[in-house]
Amino acid sequence: MASRPIVLGVVGDSAAGKTTLTRGLVRVLGEENVTHVCTDDYHCFDRKQRAERNITPLHPDCNYMDVMAQHMRHLHHGDRFLKPVYQHTDGTFGPLTLVEPRKFAVVEGLLGYYTEELRALYDVRVYLNPPEELRRKWKVSRDCSRRGYTTDQVLSELDRREPDSEAFIRPQQKFADICVSFQPNTRDDQEHLDAELILRPTLQHPDLTSVLDGSDITIDERDGDLHLHVPGNLDPNRGQDIENAIWQNLHFASHLRTERLGEFTIGTELHRSESLALVQMVVLYHLFTATASVALGGSGTRVPTVAG
Amino acid sequence: MASRPIVLGVVGDSAAGKTTLTRGLVRVLGEENVTHVCTDDYHCFDRKQRAERNITPLHPDCNYMDVMAQHMRHLHHGDRFLKPVYQHTDGTFGPLTLVEPRKFAVVEGLLGYYTEELRALYDVRVYLNPPEELRRKWKVSRDCSRRGYTTDQVLSELDRREPDSEAFIRPQQKFADICVSFQPNTRDDQEHLDAELILRPTLQHPDLTSVLDGSDITIDERDGDLHLHVPGNLDPNRGQDIENAIWQNLHFASHLRTERLGEFTIGTELHRSESLALVQMVVLYHLFTATASVALGGSGTRVPTVAG
Repeated sequence: MASRPIVLGVVGDSAAGKTTLTRGLVRVLGEENVTHVCTDDYHCFDRKQRAERNITPLHPDCNYMDVMAQHMRHLHHGDRFLKPVYQHTDGTFGPLTLVEPRKFAVVEGLLGYYTEELRALYDVRVYLNPPEELRRKWKVSRDCSRRGYTTDQVLSELDRREPDSEAFIRPQQKFADICVSFQPNTRDDQEHLDAELILRPTLQHPDLTSVLDGSDITIDERDGDLHLHVPGNLDPNRGQDIENAIWQNLHFASHLRTERLGEFTIGTELHRSESLALVQMVVLYHLFTATASVALGGSGTRVPTVAG
Repeated sequence: MASRPIVLGVVGDSAAGKTTLTRGLVRVLGEENVTHVCTDDYHCFDRKQRAERNITPLHPDCNYMDVMAQHMRHLHHGDRFLKPVYQHTDGTFGPLTLVEPRKFAVVEGLLGYYTEELRALYDVRVYLNPPEELRRKWKVSRDCSRRGYTTDQVLSELDRREPDSEAFIRPQQKFADICVSFQPNTRDDQEHLDAELILRPTLQHPDLTSVLDGSDITIDERDGDLHLHVPGNLDPNRGQDIENAIWQNLHFASHLRTERLGEFTIGTELHRSESLALVQMVVLYHLFTATASVALGGSGTRVPTVAG
C-alpha cells in the first residue's frame, strides 16, 4: 500500500512568478501535505564567490546539478534527505534542513528541467514565461524590497544574466507540460493580466470544449499543442463555470475544493485574478489525477511520447 | 501518507451471483491487491448444529454480527486480523486465517448490510437481486455440483429458508448504492441475461447521457434513483463505446484497463456478457474514484444523505 509523493515542477527565470503560482496551490493542498524545495539551494557558490568568479546562478556550472538530481530522486521515491539551504536574503548558505516526504512536493527553480534525468522526476512540469519587460519590472520590485538591492544593481544584474537566460533558462520551456505567460493587455489593467497557456500532449488535459464558446477564452491547436488565451478581465461567473467543469471530473477530490484560487498579494494587499485561478485549477487537476494513478499502482499520468 | 483499503460489499441471497460478479473485478484489480472476505465465515453454528437448532444461516442469530462488524472495522482501517473460516464443502469450521490489508477488500455475504454499523464500513455497496426463479435454478445447479447436495435437498432447503430471506436478506437491498438484477429475457437467451440496475444517489455515478440514445440501454429516474435497463444482447461495439465513455473519466487508471470485463464461466466453459461487463465497469468506476479520494486525504466518495 506504499505510495510516493506527487512532484510538481515550477521552473522559470528569476522573478517569473513561481511563488505566486505555487502559494495558492499549497493553500489548497494544505501546507502539511506539501514538501517545498527550491533548487537555488543547490548553488555551488554563495553571492560573494559568484562575484569573484563572474558566474551567474543561472549557469549550470554554478549549481550541483548531479546532487540536485540525486535529491530529486529521493523526493520522488518518498525518502527523506538532508538539503543545503541558500539564503536569498544575504546570499549565503545556512544550516542543512531535513526534508520529509509528504503527499506532494513542489520544486521551484531556475534549472529544474535542464537535464533529462531531472525532467523524468516530475509528475507535472510547469514553465513560467512572462514577457521580459514584465519580468524585469517584477524583479526590480522584489529584489529591492526583499533582497536588499538597489534598482540600478538589479537592472545591471539582469543585463549581466541575459546571455545565461538565453542559453540555459528559456530553452527549458520546451520540456514543460504547461507553459504559462501572464501578459499585460491592451486594457493596461496591471492587476488582471491575461494568460497565454500552452498545454502540451505530454499530459491529458481536462476537456474544456463543452464550456468554452469563444466569447472569452479562446483555444486553438498548433503542432499538437493546445494554445489558450485567457483574458484577465474574464467574468468571474464564467471563471466559476470553467472551474466547475473541471471539478466535475474531480468529484473524488471535492473535499479539497476551495473558493480561494487566483488569490495573490501585492505588498500586503490581497488581489484576485481569474486567469491565475484557471492556471492553478489546471495544475491541480493534474496533481489530483496523478495522485489517483499512483494510488492505483500506476506510474503517474504522463503520456509516453516518442520525444520522451 | 498512510492510506486504507477501499471496501466493496457484494450482498445477496445464496447463489445470487456474488462470486460471478466479483471474480471479474478481482481479475482487473489484481489478485495480489484484493483481500477477500466472505461473511459466511462468521456463522455461529456449523451445518450439523444448525440442523439440530432448526436455524438457517440467513438468520442474524446464526451469525456473530458483532464480531463481523469488528473485523470489518479492522479491514476498513487497514489492520490485519485473524478470521474464522467456514467451509462450504462440508459445512464445518476450519483453522483461522490471517487477513492482511491490501489496496482493496471485497466482502461478500448474506447479511453484510444488516446493521448500520456494518453499512458504514463499505465504500461501495452492491446488492444482487435476481428473480427468485433464476436464483433457485442457480442454487440447485451450484449446490448439487459443488456442495454435495441432491436437488431435492436444495429445493426443500430453499423453501425452509424463504421466511428468513424475506425477513432478513431482501430488505437489505434498500441500503445498496447499486442494485443489480440479472434477468431472463423474452428472447429466452440464458447466456446473455438482461440487467436491471438501480443506481442510488448515495454515490455520484458516471454520466452516461452523452453515450445513451435510447436505442438499447434505457435510463429513467424514479424517486431520485436512476433505473437502467441493459439488454443482454447489447451490441458488443455499443458496449465498448459505453465502457470507453466511463474510462474517459478514469484516464488516471488507464494502466488497469482490460478487455476482459464481462467474462464468466458455466462449468469450465468461458462466456461473455455485455450486461455483466457494464455492471463491473460501473463498480470499478466507484472503486477507482474512492481510491483517489482516500489518496487525497478524503473519506471516500459516499454522498452524505439525510437517511444515512
